[in-house]
Amino acid sequence: MPHIDLPEGIPGIRSGFAFRPETARPLCDLAEVLLRDENTLSRGERELIAAYVSNLNECAFCQASHSAFAAVQLEGGMTLVEEVKRDPASAPISPKLRALLAIAAKVKVDGRSVTSDDVAAARREGATDIEIHDTVLIAAAFCMFNRYVDGLATWAPTDPAVYEERAHLLVEHGYVPPVPAAAGAG
Amino acid sequence: MPHIDLPEGIPGIRSGFAFRPETARPLCDLAEVLLRDENTLSRGERELIAAYVSNLNECAFCQASHSAFAAVQLEGGMTLVEEVKRDPASAPISPKLRALLAIAAKVKVDGRSVTSDDVAAARREGATDIEIHDTVLIAAAFCMFNRYVDGLATWAPTDPAVYEERAHLLVEHGYVPPVPAAAGAG
Repeated sequence: MPHIDLPEGIPGIRSGFAFRPETARPLCDLAEVLLRDENTLSRGERELIAAYVSNLNECAFCQASHSAFAAVQLEGGMTLVEEVKRDPASAPISPKLRALLAIAAKVKVDGRSVTSDDVAAARREGATDIEIHDTVLIAAAFCMFNRYVDGLATWAPTDPAVYEERAHLLVEHGYVPPVPAAAGAG
Repeated sequence: MPHIDLPEGIPGIRSGFAFRPETARPLCDLAEVLLRDENTLSRGERELIAAYVSNLNECAFCQASHSAFAAVQLEGGMTLVEEVKRDPASAPISPKLRALLAIAAKVKVDGRSVTSDDVAAARREGATDIEIHDTVLIAAAFCMFNRYVDGLATWAPTDPAVYEERAHLLVEHGYVPPVPAAAGAG
């Protein structure tokens, strides 16, 4: 049961968004810029970083959501996502993405654990400064989102179909904050 | 030295903001809503939560910044901030704020470590659902900001005067994102 009186029947972070639309807006804006705006990393690759970090943080809702979001936007689908979560070193991804995931894993522990060697390794595989920046910020942002979702003990549906359906909505509409109740019909 | 080519002479998170104004905007919006918008927790109390979490994460730049921001907005000033960082249990703060700081410390470790007992304890001291929500999200957000600042190895000035000056600007102007270079005079 959630720790506070969140609206019922709304899963995960979206219950926090519905409870507090004022903070939902910048949080959705951040996700939209980081995960969907124009970028040399594809939307699927960025969602994969989000899923990978959420899985390291063992956040059931975020890892299921962003795994589904990555799967529908990557050629390898859920098989690839599961391989990456299990072991990025052996998963069939580009050496650049592998090096960026290694940086993301360091950020998950503590920003200070990222070394100049980690960054040099990513750069050797062709990563740009913006790609390194965005990887650090995506990983950091999911250390926030994961804690927000679990710190309120929000509801995480167990049916994978819920996350798949949401993934298709996400691809179509993006990270849209909820309409505040006051502006609704009720 | 920063891991990527951040603009020189700009300290901490603001060098990341200047490097990537697209992500700076939602990050500043989030800080503004969480730490400065109308709230039953004062601006000083919310900055104290931010300083406390940043200190637990040992993020030199964020802990110095938000300690200064809390100090200028709390009657007890820097003496109180230092006492809270050292030991919130014995610091002269309200029992409600003490209970909220205990929740923030749990969120710092992992969202799942927040228990219904922690939340019940805060509620017994008069904390509302929104105050509990905002405490969880402030703590989670600083787990992001801290990792962003340290994951890029940004520059943290050691002169306390830098942070004090910034604190006065913050109180006057708020969390304002930088003007993108393209819109500037140069």
